[in-house]
Amino acid sequence: MSADRKRIRIGIDIGGTNIKIGLVDEKQTLFAVKSIPTEREKPWQTVIKNLAEAVTGILEEQNIPLEQCEGAGIGVPGLVDEESGAVIYANNLEWTNIPLKEELSKYWSFPIKAANDADCAVLGETAAGAARGCRNVIMLTLGTGVGGGIVLNGRLFSGSMKGGCELGHMVIQEGGEPCTCGRRGCMEAYASATALIRDGKRAMDANPDTVLWQKCNGDREKLTPPELFQAAREGDETARKTVDAYRYMLAVGIANFINIFRPQMILIGGGISKQGEFLFAPIRDMLKEQCYGGDMGDIPPVREAMLGNDAGMIGAANLL
Amino acid sequence: MSADRKRIRIGIDIGGTNIKIGLVDEKQTLFAVKSIPTEREKPWQTVIKNLAEAVTGILEEQNIPLEQCEGAGIGVPGLVDEESGAVIYANNLEWTNIPLKEELSKYWSFPIKAANDADCAVLGETAAGAARGCRNVIMLTLGTGVGGGIVLNGRLFSGSMKGGCELGHMVIQEGGEPCTCGRRGCMEAYASATALIRDGKRAMDANPDTVLWQKCNGDREKLTPPELFQAAREGDETARKTVDAYRYMLAVGIANFINIFRPQMILIGGGISKQGEFLFAPIRDMLKEQCYGGDMGDIPPVREAMLGNDAGMIGAANLL
Repeated sequence: MSADRKRIRIGIDIGGTNIKIGLVDEKQTLFAVKSIPTEREKPWQTVIKNLAEAVTGILEEQNIPLEQCEGAGIGVPGLVDEESGAVIYANNLEWTNIPLKEELSKYWSFPIKAANDADCAVLGETAAGAARGCRNVIMLTLGTGVGGGIVLNGRLFSGSMKGGCELGHMVIQEGGEPCTCGRRGCMEAYASATALIRDGKRAMDANPDTVLWQKCNGDREKLTPPELFQAAREGDETARKTVDAYRYMLAVGIANFINIFRPQMILIGGGISKQGEFLFAPIRDMLKEQCYGGDMGDIPPVREAMLGNDAGMIGAANLL
Repeated sequence: MSADRKRIRIGIDIGGTNIKIGLVDEKQTLFAVKSIPTEREKPWQTVIKNLAEAVTGILEEQNIPLEQCEGAGIGVPGLVDEESGAVIYANNLEWTNIPLKEELSKYWSFPIKAANDADCAVLGETAAGAARGCRNVIMLTLGTGVGGGIVLNGRLFSGSMKGGCELGHMVIQEGGEPCTCGRRGCMEAYASATALIRDGKRAMDANPDTVLWQKCNGDREKLTPPELFQAAREGDETARKTVDAYRYMLAVGIANFINIFRPQMILIGGGISKQGEFLFAPIRDMLKEQCYGGDMGDIPPVREAMLGNDAGMIGAANLL
């Protein structure tokens, strides 16, 4: 296999639970994947050693000599100093000031790059996913929080100083719902899955007759976003209003990003994005109302990200 | 003089009332300026002809042959197609789809570039003003509206499609004050001079004893931002609260931009920026509270723009 492929790059996605290692070829195909447990409770040197050994393993399995690799890119769930390749802070790994690139240089002589994992995701989608061919993309990942990534002129833009780009922490409702970051009214406090569940529970409390109570067997703590969306599709008034309000605030945030960046595409990832057109179609109509200049300006398409969990590995490989 | 100077570029700032033409040398010095009335009521071909003749005039006055010029950059108060150099729409000039660059090519054979005037201002400040040496800058101009410009990696970023970057039209208070763009709660509806005056008048109506009534001789329509700030400096409670609220919403917007871009500097221009430290010092404290990650991330300095009306010409010259 190795003879057929050129420009082999290693893309690594470090998560709190697993480390995923992928091999990406010149056509941006992820042709081999290996996953190992992160074992974050172990010393960071051990975690990195295990990672390096797993890379050796996958290359051996694929009959690819190390010298054939162009390098390795690594996505980390936290704040990364892209210059030095150090992890400044990653709460899920309990890592603070870890010299990731420096440590990996003990194992590898090829180029090594590290970046935030959400940044890698947008880079992956732009290289090989839903935004392939676009040079300017904003991606929002709607999960526990609202993550974001920016590709400008074909390259990752992650702010010029430590701490950017936190797209979910744009206040859209000053004084509104409390956010995990300490402010109130951030987009994350309205457009995350967590926010949707919060609002669904509140709506259940106010509406004993909503079908949502049946959907979660009378236990509001079991409410999930798919149940809420399903109830809204089925016409339940309480669920519909909750989803309408969610969509609206998501559109407010997206319109802000369009007014700021005018990207060629808005990509939506994360669990909520699976709701597809039921989520997106009304948002597109709202954007026509909300974006500056209305029809005078170009309104970019809003699309579901398509690479799922592979985006991080493919994007990491594209850091090189 | 011409023999001493190298890399002479022409920077032109087209306004609704006047067209300003500047000559910029390789040290970014604006060494000659000429202003002519725009006469926007005349056909656009005439306006452009007058502009071209004025350029010939200033070059003759400076003893600079046309061939010694590297080119001309032009800032226009409206939507510009940077690729074609056409003005898509400029309401103050009453121009729609004007082939500015194409028409100027009849007079000049050197390179011609056109861009939005607010974009030129940030480029000018980055090339020769308060943000000299920075590669990543966000500039907000607080005037009748809130204009904005973005320099990323040393180059103007004005969105990848028509209609960006409208930084003032980021909603920070969904459902709040109506904005000129049709939405509610945009930063412009809180941080513009217009918004400050609106809030000052409301505060006067609610507080017959405020010193603001004396400052504007009993006529609320005469209230100006400098009077409001002066009354606040003097300790007038009504004025102080109005300025506090204004500062706070400005900080909310700035914190959003820091979270999105982490620029090296936030530049503030426009009439309001003249309030200096009385305006800026409290905002810096608020940013420490509001920016994502607090002290973990870098918080850029917030500074007053320094080139004033020259920024547009110098920036236009730097489009080349």
